[in-house]
Amino acid sequence: MSELDVYKRQGFAGAVGVGSRPALVMVDFVEGFVDPESFGGGNIQEAADASLPLLSAFRDRGWPVAHTRVVYAEDGTDAGAFARKCPGLLKLTENAPLSQILPSLSPQKDELVVRKRQASGFFETGLLSWLTWRGVDTLVVAGCTTSGCVRATVVDAVSHNLRTIVISDCVGDRALAPHEANLFDMGQKYADLMRRDEFVAATDQLAQPRRAL
Amino acid sequence: MSELDVYKRQGFAGAVGVGSRPALVMVDFVEGFVDPESFGGGNIQEAADASLPLLSAFRDRGWPVAHTRVVYAEDGTDAGAFARKCPGLLKLTENAPLSQILPSLSPQKDELVVRKRQASGFFETGLLSWLTWRGVDTLVVAGCTTSGCVRATVVDAVSHNLRTIVISDCVGDRALAPHEANLFDMGQKYADLMRRDEFVAATDQLAQPRRAL
Amino acid sequence: MSELDVYKRQGFAGAVGVGSRPALVMVDFVEGFVDPESFGGGNIQEAADASLPLLSAFRDRGWPVAHTRVVYAEDGTDAGAFARKCPGLLKLTENAPLSQILPSLSPQKDELVVRKRQASGFFETGLLSWLTWRGVDTLVVAGCTTSGCVRATVVDAVSHNLRTIVISDCVGDRALAPHEANLFDMGQKYADLMRRDEFVAATDQLAQPRRAL
Amino acid sequence: MSELDVYKRQGFAGAVGVGSRPALVMVDFVEGFVDPESFGGGNIQEAADASLPLLSAFRDRGWPVAHTRVVYAEDGTDAGAFARKCPGLLKLTENAPLSQILPSLSPQKDELVVRKRQASGFFETGLLSWLTWRGVDTLVVAGCTTSGCVRATVVDAVSHNLRTIVISDCVGDRALAPHEANLFDMGQKYADLMRRDEFVAATDQLAQPRRAL
Repeated sequence: MSELDVYKRQGFAGAVGVGSRPALVMVDFVEGFVDPESFGGGNIQEAADASLPLLSAFRDRGWPVAHTRVVYAEDGTDAGAFARKCPGLLKLTENAPLSQILPSLSPQKDELVVRKRQASGFFETGLLSWLTWRGVDTLVVAGCTTSGCVRATVVDAVSHNLRTIVISDCVGDRALAPHEANLFDMGQKYADLMRRDEFVAATDQLAQPRRAL
Repeated sequence: MSELDVYKRQGFAGAVGVGSRPALVMVDFVEGFVDPESFGGGNIQEAADASLPLLSAFRDRGWPVAHTRVVYAEDGTDAGAFARKCPGLLKLTENAPLSQILPSLSPQKDELVVRKRQASGFFETGLLSWLTWRGVDTLVVAGCTTSGCVRATVVDAVSHNLRTIVISDCVGDRALAPHEANLFDMGQKYADLMRRDEFVAATDQLAQPRRAL
Repeated sequence: MSELDVYKRQGFAGAVGVGSRPALVMVDFVEGFVDPESFGGGNIQEAADASLPLLSAFRDRGWPVAHTRVVYAEDGTDAGAFARKCPGLLKLTENAPLSQILPSLSPQKDELVVRKRQASGFFETGLLSWLTWRGVDTLVVAGCTTSGCVRATVVDAVSHNLRTIVISDCVGDRALAPHEANLFDMGQKYADLMRRDEFVAATDQLAQPRRAL
Repeated sequence: MSELDVYKRQGFAGAVGVGSRPALVMVDFVEGFVDPESFGGGNIQEAADASLPLLSAFRDRGWPVAHTRVVYAEDGTDAGAFARKCPGLLKLTENAPLSQILPSLSPQKDELVVRKRQASGFFETGLLSWLTWRGVDTLVVAGCTTSGCVRATVVDAVSHNLRTIVISDCVGDRALAPHEANLFDMGQKYADLMRRDEFVAATDQLAQPRRAL
């Protein structure tokens, strides 16, 4: 798509870089988003599988990990404009099987589980202050969907002045065209795109002094 | 793109509808975003031209109008992560010619001018409380770029439970592929897409009783 | 306290007034805040008793009602700076008896229950967008403590441009001096102070047309 | 006031402590707030005088400093509920002499100047993300008024999980009773109270390694 050269000419896609205190957020890796009969499909299962070694790396290094889920009240009292656009999401209540985090990626003790009603993991949630309390300067993002909750979370993260890294093989979407289009937008304007193994290798040294603490 | 049928099957693209008290936000229609040598090009000038009758309709009806601009401090003290990705934006200071709203769309008395440093018109600005004070329930969005500040503003608007309407011929982007991809995402998940004339006609009756107030 | 005349001379204590769409928020009327052995005492039970007819008036009129509770995770993962100052609050977990809303004031269907970790009912919660979705322009505040969560909620409400009314006989505190001092501050700068019966009488007419809807 | 013993019995007034990266915010030390004929009087001038050595210590140590001012638009377009309660504040426009920071405390290069319309220095401003970008974990607060903008800023700071320190001899108010009452509330629930010389001495060691960076 040569028309996209305009981004290069106009000076986008600067690098924000990894800081000294990364945290990981796993966005909406719940049953309903891997199931093609619910809200899933595409390359989401693949992204979830690829995210397990990323999650393990954060755990091994003792770095903070948060998970997000969409959770609406049973009676829909907390539904609003977004639920009008995406009415199916109202099925994602606290105990609905569709809204449970995938067992393979299940949260551990000391990991934050963010319940949200909107696309962004930051909107009306405790995610930002939880990161602040831990001195985090870099948010590493995996999850789904690339064109939905991942992107909304990334835009908020960079707006809050967190260095934001999207792990490109650990995010997925129900359809590949929006997945690619949103990776492009994010890489140009909001986040550095890195592949999982690249990120893990690049931050290996960073992990050492903190282990020593 | 038949893979996009998945959105239909999964029940996205519900209609949120126009409420009873609309406001208009004109996102970043400033010199630098129509100039292809700065941050503009594509169909942005066309969107700006198309927005003038929309703006006039809101003014004739006495409905609230807000405008956004990106404004950084002269010394860059308020720059952060986003400015690392898009360093060119730091040129958009209070008095820089590039950061001035297009003369044809110049704000009038009682219209809010929002100065922002991030993509969303809501982020760290007075936009939301200004709308609340005026009892607004519907945000109509024109401006640029579709894949940047328009989308970020739209995602925040729907998250704040404003009914959100994107006027598809009044938003523009420096490159058409991201423009189209983001219209798709917004229409599926965050906002109703309407063409300008369709919106103006559909809300003509709504305008009558309020004129009478 | 004649030194307080300075507020009058300097033009504080303007009236914000009741708008056309009020909602009620009942702040933290939970077991732990009426119990003098936990976080309660003073005139809090009295305020809770006085709030029942206020709550009934809102219900009779079909006006929105929200309730807040302090709820921390069982494992304290979401605790931070505030919990350092007030460590006892960490006992207020989802199922702890101390964190249950008083049975006499128990939420009904369609009333929002806000779980919060900070003093303000707005902080990292869905309260604001829930009010926006219902077109609320006036927030009426009852609850406890006057010098803590009530005041923090009131300051956020007025900042969000909601007309804010504190029902002075429906708010209470564990000690009377802070109760009085905070009523003074709120009445001067943030909210109109009204007694319950005064508010109910003053809004009786307002209730009529909405019943008719 | 022996009734205040209840706070001790109930376990308030925990210590949050100074972290490793402090920043200073100077709240509303502007002409109008030292002038008893405008919004000032009481011990505000005294607090401003006492704050100069505190400001100098932060500058000497190379620690971040922010200043806040209340600034409304000339045409009052951005006024809302708060301005109804405190209509005099609308005089505080960008160029009004009353809204200028005291010359003795004038901001230097690289210090943030926050323009705000509400009591809290965080509300709809860039203060939080500016602190995040600098890795700040502790907010030290001086300014005026203790019962107004200082307290609102402090409540937001602790809610955002910043360790919050109020320098008790560097905050002031137009009347002493609200000053004292709000110091009490803040010390019990939101912030550690320290005297200026105590803070400067306690953080002297902390300053060393950062000088060396």
